[in-house]
Amino acid sequence: MGPQDEFTLEQLRTLLSPQRYAHSLGVSAVAGELAKRYGAPVEKAQLAGLLHDCGKSQSKNILLNRVLEFGIVMDEVERCETGLLHGPVSAKLAQEMFGVEDEDILAAIYYHTTGRAHMSLLEKIIYLADYLEPQRSFPGVDELRELAKEDLAAALVQAMDLTLIRVIERGLLIHPRTVAARNWLLE
Amino acid sequence: MGPQDEFTLEQLRTLLSPQRYAHSLGVSAVAGELAKRYGAPVEKAQLAGLLHDCGKSQSKNILLNRVLEFGIVMDEVERCETGLLHGPVSAKLAQEMFGVEDEDILAAIYYHTTGRAHMSLLEKIIYLADYLEPQRSFPGVDELRELAKEDLAAALVQAMDLTLIRVIERGLLIHPRTVAARNWLLE
Repeated sequence: MGPQDEFTLEQLRTLLSPQRYAHSLGVSAVAGELAKRYGAPVEKAQLAGLLHDCGKSQSKNILLNRVLEFGIVMDEVERCETGLLHGPVSAKLAQEMFGVEDEDILAAIYYHTTGRAHMSLLEKIIYLADYLEPQRSFPGVDELRELAKEDLAAALVQAMDLTLIRVIERGLLIHPRTVAARNWLLE
Repeated sequence: MGPQDEFTLEQLRTLLSPQRYAHSLGVSAVAGELAKRYGAPVEKAQLAGLLHDCGKSQSKNILLNRVLEFGIVMDEVERCETGLLHGPVSAKLAQEMFGVEDEDILAAIYYHTTGRAHMSLLEKIIYLADYLEPQRSFPGVDELRELAKEDLAAALVQAMDLTLIRVIERGLLIHPRTVAARNWLLE
């Protein structure tokens, strides 16, 4: 199943709000470009980008029902910040509804919100593509888009720094995987 | 051995720079006040405040020699951010040079830079006293001093938030214990 597959696109469109669907197309496109630049498999990156949020456009109840249904074990932070669960849920849906079996694609979807230490190249690309797709707008986004073309790790650290600061300012819990990912990248 | 013990003060003065010694007296005084306010043992708080940095006024070489001598096992973050080791080293020195055996005092010294999940009342007091002693000056310090009198946990979260943001902005590694402490306080 490729990212251009009409059936995949139709199925995805039924799952997501129009904005979320447009965002997914944007992430898929940026992921494909980054994959080309950094020597990752382009079709895998496009498919992972397309499906990274496939479990997201849902009420909190639907999300938590899927967590139960899929037998996903919540960690301490996810129990409070349930929004983070859309990564694991999307990975499961990508497998069960879209027939994705590639472990690297599934991991890139699973970890796209938090990152983790020892992220694969594909995981890094999806994390950044999600942060930088064309609809995203925040102070410094254009500089970060340029940096992503030159130094993937440096751009990733900067995206994580901005995410952490936003999480701190909003009084939300910090996922330890993001800290582990950032420390690993800086080391 | 009490905090007012002349011998303790003289011994500490030989270990520290004049500024660090003055800082330690300040932390001891603020820790005593917070202890009185929140019902912690005042003399313990004063002694922990006095000795919290006793292993700090040293070259990096001396610090690392003490880490080896004391058999302290560095974690991944401490291997890069060696400054963090002054907490564990100070706890060991407090025990070996100053004869402190009280586990809560030793833990308050050990964890005073990072904090940790399930901090004791004394650990919270020493973390905050270190952040707020009279010589400290930063935007918002007076508001934070007021908050510390009313809501210890809220003041602690704010101190950790400011610490994390400074660490992020300086491109340093984040210690996972600080994130665990903050998440625990927010939960």
